[in-house]
Parts: sequence; structure tokens; C-alpha cells
Amino acid sequence: MKDRIKGKMTEKFTNEEKNGLYKAIHSRRDVRSHFIPKLIEDEILSRILNAAHHAPSVGFSQPWNFILIKDPQTKARIKKSFEEEKESSSQLIEEPKKSKYLSFKLEGILESPVNLCVTYDPSKFGPFVIGRSSIPEAGLYSVCCAIQNLWLAARTEGVGLGWVSILSNDVLKEVLDLPSHVIPIAYLCLGYVDEFASKPDLETAGWLPRLSLKDVIYFEKWEDKENLNWKNIQEIIKTNLDYA
Amino acid sequence: MKDRIKGKMTEKFTNEEKNGLYKAIHSRRDVRSHFIPKLIEDEILSRILNAAHHAPSVGFSQPWNFILIKDPQTKARIKKSFEEEKESSSQLIEEPKKSKYLSFKLEGILESPVNLCVTYDPSKFGPFVIGRSSIPEAGLYSVCCAIQNLWLAARTEGVGLGWVSILSNDVLKEVLDLPSHVIPIAYLCLGYVDEFASKPDLETAGWLPRLSLKDVIYFEKWEDKENLNWKNIQEIIKTNLDYA
Repeated sequence: MKDRIKGKMTEKFTNEEKNGLYKAIHSRRDVRSHFIPKLIEDEILSRILNAAHHAPSVGFSQPWNFILIKDPQTKARIKKSFEEEKESSSQLIEEPKKSKYLSFKLEGILESPVNLCVTYDPSKFGPFVIGRSSIPEAGLYSVCCAIQNLWLAARTEGVGLGWVSILSNDVLKEVLDLPSHVIPIAYLCLGYVDEFASKPDLETAGWLPRLSLKDVIYFEKWEDKENLNWKNIQEIIKTNLDYA
Repeated sequence: MKDRIKGKMTEKFTNEEKNGLYKAIHSRRDVRSHFIPKLIEDEILSRILNAAHHAPSVGFSQPWNFILIKDPQTKARIKKSFEEEKESSSQLIEEPKKSKYLSFKLEGILESPVNLCVTYDPSKFGPFVIGRSSIPEAGLYSVCCAIQNLWLAARTEGVGLGWVSILSNDVLKEVLDLPSHVIPIAYLCLGYVDEFASKPDLETAGWLPRLSLKDVIYFEKWEDKENLNWKNIQEIIKTNLDYA
């Protein structure tokens, strides 16, 4: 694959290649309940991780690490933290939402063959990192871009990914021996699936609606939706561009 | 494009589609100095923004907004903030690094036809958002995933994107009329380019090296690179998987 991609850096994308990217974006799902036991081949897992490692990073700091996990004891400790956090967060809402929330399947820690913790190490290539002095959070943002690369690459390989954020980061740090300065950003569950849902689970369940594209775009200033210098695109985004 | 993608949700990706995603990931660049004056067609810009809007979001909260900017006065105010922040951050390093840093071209605010501020609104669909109670930063992370979708979609369309993080968020908030609870996450410059560099500018300039994939992957615990249960993949990631 190396040579195949290398020669094409400045070339245009064919329609099918372009469609591949959009198809990955629009059919990507947060997977919790469709994992099958089939193992992920090491070549595929490496390719997915390499996609993550080629994310943009502030000042080229590449501040990410990826901890691959399959030890059942580690998974069990993380699952326990999930259950505790799910229970305590349910106390924040009233019925009937509370019961609905508690009924959702929100992780696949034990069923997925591979768990992956993605971490942020602010000390890497530091302390001075170009572009991180004015906005220190920019390092975190780089790690998130890596996660999205990973998610899309997994999707094209038929591998489902679920991000578990109902967790205690303190537990994660202890279980995975993270140094105090390293921040866990994501705990991910990866595995082949029997299907990718056509819509996000929380949309299907009626928990929240998909916003229209026109509701998230402003022009020149916050909340300006009718700026006269942007008339044409205002018409386009009113049409239904939602693929997924 | 809607139907073309809709029917394929659970289908496999062809090799060319898959290659399209990997090609986008490995040939994406942070663009500062290759913008050309050609305007971005509104249909293309809409498609790129729609890709961003279809990112994953914690609890399906879709907490992002996109502010499109082309007003020269706004751009000039942002550029001024960039210059001030670049100067003050240069005080943090000694020669010869300082002069090298100051010589780098690090933004294309005025040359790019479209600037775009991506913001995070924690109040959207709140205060209770599924998955954001234990790790409140998860909302920020969703916005970053949207930015990476946008970046990859832009790349397949031949549109370059540069992320400017040498900026004052206070200035951004004032210039764009952001409410106090809304956090600017990224200020992006978008436009067609005469070329995409084959490597990151900071790598070419010898500022920092690309890390090897094997240096960012651990097994089961922090810093464990030799766990016996992961032998095969340890061999694979030692080979040169770096495409870009």
C-alpha cells in the first residue's frame, strides 16, 4: 500500500476514492451492541493505528499513545468503573428519562476483542510546542483528530468502534499505570460487527434528533444566519444534505 | 450523492473506496503557504461542512457550530492577534530556535478565501448529556472529531486547510460575538492550493522528526512494548508503515 499512496500525494481523487471518504464519514457509527467474536487481524489493526498516527498535531508534537488491551482482568476492572459511573450519573436525571437512560446499552468492553486507550502526553517534544502557547488545549485536540482518523479507518475495514466515556479517568490511570502527567482521552472498544446501524442509536431511540445543517452554521458572527454576503450557500444548506 | 451513499451503509468498501480514505489521511496537510485565490464553490463548501456535522458526538449532542468568515476587516483583526501571539510566544525560546520559529510561515488568514471558526457550545441539549458526566471534556472531543472530518473532506476536494492556534481566544470571542459560555475550538483557513506538500512543513524544516509507529504503541499498560501476548503485531509495526 505504501507505494500506491505515495505517488498520489498531489494528485486528484477519483470519484470512487472521494466517495470512499464520504461513505466512511456517513456510515461510521458508535458501536455498542453488534460486536462478533472474530479477531481483528494484526495487519488490519496496524493499518488502523497507522492512520491514527498520521493525524495532524499541533507543532508536529504527535502527543498521542495507544495502549492495546485484551487482558480480561483489565477489561473487567474497566467494566466495573463503567457500571459505577453509569449508576451515579443516572442520579442526575428524573424519570422517565432515567429509566430510559439506564436501559441503553452503552458499551461493548467485554464483547469486543480489542480495547484501546488513547492518551495525551503534554511533555512530548515539550515544553515549547509551536502553536500550543496561546491555546494549551491544542495538544488535546490533536489526539482527538487521531481518534477520528482511527474511527474512519476502522469503518472502511468493517471494524466497529465504540467510545466509552462513562468511566472514571482515575480508575483508568491506575489500571493502566499512566504517569500522573499523562491524560487518558478515550477508551475505545474495537471489533468486527454483524452490522452497522443506519442511524445513531440515540437518534433511533428518540433520545435526541439530528440537527439540520442550517442550524449549526453561522456567517461572519455568532447567530447570524442571514448575512447577505452568503446568500447562495444559505439556500444550499437548507436543502436536505443529510445522508445518514 | 444521498442515494449513492444511503444504500451502502452496511456494504463493504471496495479497494478503491478504502484507498480513498487512506489517501486522504496520508496526504492531508496543515496548509499555510500554498493557497490560490480561486473561490471555493458553495456546493463543495456545503459538502465539507456536512461531513463535519456527521462526526460522532458524545450523547449525540452535536455541540458544534461553524462560523464562516470572509469579511476582510474580521480577517485583519484575527491576523493582528496572530502576530501578537507569535511575537509573545517567541519570547519563550532561545536562539537559534527563536529565529527559526519566527521565520516559519504559520498561517494563511488573509490569503485563504474562507476562514472558519469552529465552536463548542456545552449548553446544547444540556445540562445532562449522556457520556459527559464523568468526563466533561468529552464535549470538546466531539468538536475535534468534526474538525478532522472536515479536514479530510476538504483534502479529497482539493481544498487545503490550515489550523491557526497562535491566537488569543479572548480576541476571537470578541470579534465573533461569541456568548461567554461558548468556547472557540479552532480557527481554520480554507482554500484551493497549488500543491499539497509531501510531508508536514515542520518535518521538512527539520524542526521535529516523525515518530515511528512502534514508538507510540504500548500493550496492556503504559510503556510496555514487549508484552508476550502481542508478539505478532509488535513485529508488524516495526516495519516501515509510514506512507507520508
